Amino acid sequence: MVYRKNEEEQLHEACGVFGIYAPGKDVARLTYYALYALQHRGQESSGITVSDGKEFKTHKNMGLASEVFNDEIIDQMKGHIALGHVLYADKDVCTIEHAQPTVFQYAKGSVALACNGILLNADELRVELEQKGAVFQNSIDNEIMMQLIASHPNDSLEDAICSMMQRLHGIYSLAIMTEDKLIGVRDPLGVRPLCLGEMDGHYLIASESCALDSIGAKLVRDVHPGEIIVIDQSGYKSIRPFPEKPAFCIFEYVYLARPDSSFDGRNVAMVRQEMGRQLAREHKVDGDVVIGVPDSGLSAAFGYAEESGIPYQLGILKNRYIARTFIQPTQSMRDESVYLKLNPIREALEGKKVIMVDDSIVRGTTSRRLVKMIRDAGASEVHLMISSPPVMHPCFYGINIADSSHLIAAQKSIEEITEYVGADGVYYLSLEGLLNSTKRDPGNYCAACFNGQYALSCKKMGQ
Amino acid sequence: MVYRKNEEEQLHEACGVFGIYAPGKDVARLTYYALYALQHRGQESSGITVSDGKEFKTHKNMGLASEVFNDEIIDQMKGHIALGHVLYADKDVCTIEHAQPTVFQYAKGSVALACNGILLNADELRVELEQKGAVFQNSIDNEIMMQLIASHPNDSLEDAICSMMQRLHGIYSLAIMTEDKLIGVRDPLGVRPLCLGEMDGHYLIASESCALDSIGAKLVRDVHPGEIIVIDQSGYKSIRPFPEKPAFCIFEYVYLARPDSSFDGRNVAMVRQEMGRQLAREHKVDGDVVIGVPDSGLSAAFGYAEESGIPYQLGILKNRYIARTFIQPTQSMRDESVYLKLNPIREALEGKKVIMVDDSIVRGTTSRRLVKMIRDAGASEVHLMISSPPVMHPCFYGINIADSSHLIAAQKSIEEITEYVGADGVYYLSLEGLLNSTKRDPGNYCAACFNGQYALSCKKMGQ
Amino acid sequence: MVYRKNEEEQLHEACGVFGIYAPGKDVARLTYYALYALQHRGQESSGITVSDGKEFKTHKNMGLASEVFNDEIIDQMKGHIALGHVLYADKDVCTIEHAQPTVFQYAKGSVALACNGILLNADELRVELEQKGAVFQNSIDNEIMMQLIASHPNDSLEDAICSMMQRLHGIYSLAIMTEDKLIGVRDPLGVRPLCLGEMDGHYLIASESCALDSIGAKLVRDVHPGEIIVIDQSGYKSIRPFPEKPAFCIFEYVYLARPDSSFDGRNVAMVRQEMGRQLAREHKVDGDVVIGVPDSGLSAAFGYAEESGIPYQLGILKNRYIARTFIQPTQSMRDESVYLKLNPIREALEGKKVIMVDDSIVRGTTSRRLVKMIRDAGASEVHLMISSPPVMHPCFYGINIADSSHLIAAQKSIEEITEYVGADGVYYLSLEGLLNSTKRDPGNYCAACFNGQYALSCKKMGQ
Amino acid sequence: MVYRKNEEEQLHEACGVFGIYAPGKDVARLTYYALYALQHRGQESSGITVSDGKEFKTHKNMGLASEVFNDEIIDQMKGHIALGHVLYADKDVCTIEHAQPTVFQYAKGSVALACNGILLNADELRVELEQKGAVFQNSIDNEIMMQLIASHPNDSLEDAICSMMQRLHGIYSLAIMTEDKLIGVRDPLGVRPLCLGEMDGHYLIASESCALDSIGAKLVRDVHPGEIIVIDQSGYKSIRPFPEKPAFCIFEYVYLARPDSSFDGRNVAMVRQEMGRQLAREHKVDGDVVIGVPDSGLSAAFGYAEESGIPYQLGILKNRYIARTFIQPTQSMRDESVYLKLNPIREALEGKKVIMVDDSIVRGTTSRRLVKMIRDAGASEVHLMISSPPVMHPCFYGINIADSSHLIAAQKSIEEITEYVGADGVYYLSLEGLLNSTKRDPGNYCAACFNGQYALSCKKMGQ
Repeated sequence: MVYRKNEEEQLHEACGVFGIYAPGKDVARLTYYALYALQHRGQESSGITVSDGKEFKTHKNMGLASEVFNDEIIDQMKGHIALGHVLYADKDVCTIEHAQPTVFQYAKGSVALACNGILLNADELRVELEQKGAVFQNSIDNEIMMQLIASHPNDSLEDAICSMMQRLHGIYSLAIMTEDKLIGVRDPLGVRPLCLGEMDGHYLIASESCALDSIGAKLVRDVHPGEIIVIDQSGYKSIRPFPEKPAFCIFEYVYLARPDSSFDGRNVAMVRQEMGRQLAREHKVDGDVVIGVPDSGLSAAFGYAEESGIPYQLGILKNRYIARTFIQPTQSMRDESVYLKLNPIREALEGKKVIMVDDSIVRGTTSRRLVKMIRDAGASEVHLMISSPPVMHPCFYGINIADSSHLIAAQKSIEEITEYVGADGVYYLSLEGLLNSTKRDPGNYCAACFNGQYALSCKKMGQ
Repeated sequence: MVYRKNEEEQLHEACGVFGIYAPGKDVARLTYYALYALQHRGQESSGITVSDGKEFKTHKNMGLASEVFNDEIIDQMKGHIALGHVLYADKDVCTIEHAQPTVFQYAKGSVALACNGILLNADELRVELEQKGAVFQNSIDNEIMMQLIASHPNDSLEDAICSMMQRLHGIYSLAIMTEDKLIGVRDPLGVRPLCLGEMDGHYLIASESCALDSIGAKLVRDVHPGEIIVIDQSGYKSIRPFPEKPAFCIFEYVYLARPDSSFDGRNVAMVRQEMGRQLAREHKVDGDVVIGVPDSGLSAAFGYAEESGIPYQLGILKNRYIARTFIQPTQSMRDESVYLKLNPIREALEGKKVIMVDDSIVRGTTSRRLVKMIRDAGASEVHLMISSPPVMHPCFYGINIADSSHLIAAQKSIEEITEYVGADGVYYLSLEGLLNSTKRDPGNYCAACFNGQYALSCKKMGQ
Repeated sequence: MVYRKNEEEQLHEACGVFGIYAPGKDVARLTYYALYALQHRGQESSGITVSDGKEFKTHKNMGLASEVFNDEIIDQMKGHIALGHVLYADKDVCTIEHAQPTVFQYAKGSVALACNGILLNADELRVELEQKGAVFQNSIDNEIMMQLIASHPNDSLEDAICSMMQRLHGIYSLAIMTEDKLIGVRDPLGVRPLCLGEMDGHYLIASESCALDSIGAKLVRDVHPGEIIVIDQSGYKSIRPFPEKPAFCIFEYVYLARPDSSFDGRNVAMVRQEMGRQLAREHKVDGDVVIGVPDSGLSAAFGYAEESGIPYQLGILKNRYIARTFIQPTQSMRDESVYLKLNPIREALEGKKVIMVDDSIVRGTTSRRLVKMIRDAGASEVHLMISSPPVMHPCFYGINIADSSHLIAAQKSIEEITEYVGADGVYYLSLEGLLNSTKRDPGNYCAACFNGQYALSCKKMGQ
Repeated sequence: MVYRKNEEEQLHEACGVFGIYAPGKDVARLTYYALYALQHRGQESSGITVSDGKEFKTHKNMGLASEVFNDEIIDQMKGHIALGHVLYADKDVCTIEHAQPTVFQYAKGSVALACNGILLNADELRVELEQKGAVFQNSIDNEIMMQLIASHPNDSLEDAICSMMQRLHGIYSLAIMTEDKLIGVRDPLGVRPLCLGEMDGHYLIASESCALDSIGAKLVRDVHPGEIIVIDQSGYKSIRPFPEKPAFCIFEYVYLARPDSSFDGRNVAMVRQEMGRQLAREHKVDGDVVIGVPDSGLSAAFGYAEESGIPYQLGILKNRYIARTFIQPTQSMRDESVYLKLNPIREALEGKKVIMVDDSIVRGTTSRRLVKMIRDAGASEVHLMISSPPVMHPCFYGINIADSSHLIAAQKSIEEITEYVGADGVYYLSLEGLLNSTKRDPGNYCAACFNGQYALSCKKMGQ
């Protein structure tokens, strides 16, 4: 693979991180399974670093965990602490050098880092560090964080992390490993998730609780915004040096997270089903059948069917053999009614008034294609129910949502959207309805993509 | 890969076949997409052969279509006819030499064959052919079929196929290609599916109609039992030299086929939803929530929820990043509550009376594990609803169902099964209920695994 | 890899074969080392088949033995008999289906074949066999041989081989293996080499004696022209049913064979050194230094230096890191003085009268490039000494020598050749001098490429 | 591959470096061919970095250049400057992170480095840099050099290089690249070679002149010890800030360098042939035949034959298909007379008094095996002629010569060595004879391995 280095590569990320401190356990294998559970958060690269107390071993590469690792590799990775990472990134610019964990040596020894997040002041920090003599070897934020830590060679790692956090302006959930410690860090807003788990008396950190379930560990609690959790042989301790002003990303509930994960004690699938019920309360429509768009629209569709009493039916089948290496269809095939990834079930739709439930509309092109598919399969009416409000503002915190000019709801009225997607009706869940579905304090969430209220300023906002 | 040759390798198969005759189209690429749609019928190997009227090009290998093919390979495969195949087989014995299509030359030219089926008199035919001087190069049934065809060097291929069919005692759906013809063949019982499609005036054959949808082709009709369909530049013609006594495998509806396929005009998902409704009519149970076992139990679960009025809920999440290369957990992990492929959604199950719908019980071990999982997640009751009757007899026609000693329903009463799987109740759909769900003549189906009435005799039955 | 099948693919071959019968030895590993020693006879594919008395295991692929095999593969190939093959073929048409050994089953059991040779009546035999109902799966001669053997299902294998040999019109050295026997066969002219070896009481066959040395085996003798050697647990027996008229290819001594091999008791390097001495006797030239063209011109150059008294000097260095995957230079680079594979040693050549010894001239383009290289390095005179006579006739027996129109000696006089290659003189060894260098009966050799006297007729000769 | 990081990995290296500044040329392809010519200096990894004036592209991996690169990769590497590197290292400890060139960013922009050498004060420098806040990402010397350069963020790169050289205690030939410059650096002793070339008005640097020949470039001159050569669009300029005390490694002439390279105007093959002549002058022995040990003993053997008048003969054949992936023979095979890599030519040796010429004896085990091989092939006497003096002292400057306890000449007298290797006589070239063969000032060479006079102190010397 040819490696490229340039300044365009600053990647928006929504990754998965994992860390485990468990002497006597096969920590590399457990981390592998945890990455497999977190794979939905990133499919571009997968990596694991283990420490046996003396040295680190790292294996990472482009691809899914199941492509990057095999039994032989895992068997060679012996140790008592492990860190894992899966990367989400734009396929076209991301290369092996973006793969994590990243490993560094500094005055206090070796450090491995895995990060889910984005620094908004990366450029400024980098220039400042270079002027002091710093050498960089790639363009990922982890290196900036490590240079900030290393610039306090006489402080403890915990103190150096606090100093670093004071300099960072960004969104981040971090897993950090030394030869004998595991540290979890969440930014003061707590935009991205991070939780603490327990397994036979050992402690773990993970982006989502589903990673804990997958290996038989128990959820202790979410890591608090701005909290530093230090795990070592004596258990875990919590450092909370920063005032907290929680702003958890509501889109994790809408789309990003796995349905079997829980945040702040609320299961994602249950929240989605409640969104569907609320949608039915807000929008009553005369329909024969309710169908869900796989996979993120399903739970809301079940909720809509339950609340409305209209029967749920398998209406669209998703091909389960999708692979990263799938050969893309030619343009001429794409224009015809070729149903490679999703296929409508004609007999279920023919002559029916169909209520199709999806989680969100971003650009509108996918919705348009789905409505056409259902109509071509013979539906007499197609009503598009969206289990979130109109997406009207870009996200600067790592989610790859298009800029405003490409957001259909920022450009068109609901009537125009309805016409564009070709539906008989388009219905959105209210923001209040969405936030209430969580059954938690609505003030705890970042809903900037819906309401434009950004918790953290960013140069690009001025655009 | 080391190739092995021995007589143990006679494989039970339930594969997918596809053929297209379409001058002017990119037939290799269309076949690739069709294999992708048929991939659920076989994940061990994938292959395509194309003819450009002068020579054949074949590419095949172990693995999924998306692993075996890439753009460059497909681009090299120019022609106007193509054949495709995906193989289901026991991973431990199957090797590259079992991959299809297989290509042969004989007195009349080149022939490629792709087969879904099994010959019950393969050994006898092979010995007889060898005594006449035949040379074999591997152990798959295709070679026996081809030797039978070649033993009529002066007959037309169609006549030679008829002669071959008279000698075959078995189950088979075949796609056959010469330099300028495509031929589809279904055995006189029609146990395995095969259908005829049409696309812009060109004809195709496929194991299931979902393969036609995936490339924008239309279903013409199922190929009849015992029928030979010959496709060439003048369209298609039908040869039906054998008396028909249809015995279509009912298990295709229960489990094998993709939900968006149709047989004999009946969509699989609709039939499964009807099975679920019928199950609710046959077995009323006091429950709080209905959940389906992914993926084959889902449609029946929707039907059960619809008919019973008990709400459907996402109760078990299936990890979608399953890969052939997934590292198996160690035994100690398997014994703990480790949920790698399926994970229960605790909040949906805790304290609930759960009705879990699945398509069938074979050995009972999977059901036992599922019931434990749901109970461990906090369910107060677990009722296991099965959308088919007890499986009491082995299948000799290609489906890898265990022999009677391993079939739990052949060994235990329903009470004993309930105890073994640890459920509060186990409920089966009646055979009548199952057959009626198809809304077709019940006499048209092979239900030997449920009722022991085999349409074709087999040496092993004597066991 | 895309496999192609057509009639153009009839390959000219000059391969290496090996067989060993040695219960208790690691026969696959010994065969691997033997192939490594025979690799100069073919670099396109490498393969091994072993028998453990019950079944065969074959591993073969495109590439060198060191590329195709690894420890793990070899360790899986347990048995007491093994066959090995390396293939020489035109890179552009050869595919995995040409790789040998090839394995067949017929009435008497399994047979593996490895062949160095070419059938001149392949097309006729194939048509005849197909008319009797034979099925072919590829286009290599081995399949024709096997069909001929199988057409005598009631004869012993030895008798069937004799019958086959009566039908073959061609050049061939064969190694054949059954579950419990190893058989070596050489065509009645004995054009290609084959020898019998012994190792701790076990017997082996090999294309060249260097393969025996490489594994510590001893040369027993050459296999006679037309002889069949049958090796089993009782030792070896010889069958010689055909009259012998030896016509061993003299080009094996000139260029093809490895210098450390011996044929008919004469070491190749010693014969080449004698050719060089004889060349010096025939052509005395005033020179300052003798240099050899690596690698096949070296021994003759040593002989020339010895006989003439002119000092030998390393004049051209050959890069030893040549690989099949080497990236070819662009045309513009090829036109400049770019010395990628051979580099002249300027200080050794500058201002010198250079006598450069090479084994042969075929098209003349290589010689022209070499002469230019030496002159550009500063030589005042370049005299080109060739240790064989002018090549004036094509070879129909497997050596890929161009047809007459491309043979420079068939088109030009020695003066014209001297001018074309740009030398101060070009000097050939006489045919008598060449044949006498072997110190054996000159009538035992095929020298058709030099004198046009073909031992076996061929349709193409009429051209 | 699993990456390992620890302090044991400090590698002794004897690598090849190359750099070219040539706008309008295909610099990546030219570098690939140059690496191919330098491959004898390192087979563990190969790498190229190109600059197009804006960004760097690097491709590197374990393996030979022909294994690491292909046409597609080279075609993607567009630019006007390129750097190349081949790595020699202990196979067991070296990993992808040791592959070069290495790329860094610092205050002045991007820098790529390729190094042949070893720092003797690496540990001290690293600790000092870490105490100032430096972050390291691996364990190779390049990173230390770059940190030293970056610690002068306000100086020009040339000045920073001078500052760095004042801190380095070691042996090094460097090629350094920025977006628009190519810089060659040789340590003040000039232990490892580095030369300056020219090609159509563009300048190049290379470890050996053979790399220049291979791509049609001309040798300008050697880079002087302690010299910094800066190449950019205006040509090249020389900076010589350090006093020079040349100590070129004499072992480059004896063994390391390619025979077609020249140092200080003296061709290696010519020097080796002169060593052979001098050996014949120093040691007259009654022999029938002279043979050379391939490949490094050949030129000296030609010289010995020339001076002594005893005929040279091909006596040992080296298998040319050696690959990194060659399967090692089992111990039992190694003990038998198995000749996998070198095979004696019996007919040339039988009954002869053989003079075998080799370049050096280190541990003596190879010589012992060779003498046995020649004797087993029937030689009546074996005289071992060594074209260098006894190796009695370890090398601390990158050549992997064993420590004194394993150097046979440090432990035994010549009589004992003769007995150990089993020869009829062992004869060494005198140090004076060796140095005089170069026809240059004997004071210009480091001959520490022969005479123990080290030019640079090293902690390990105290051992």
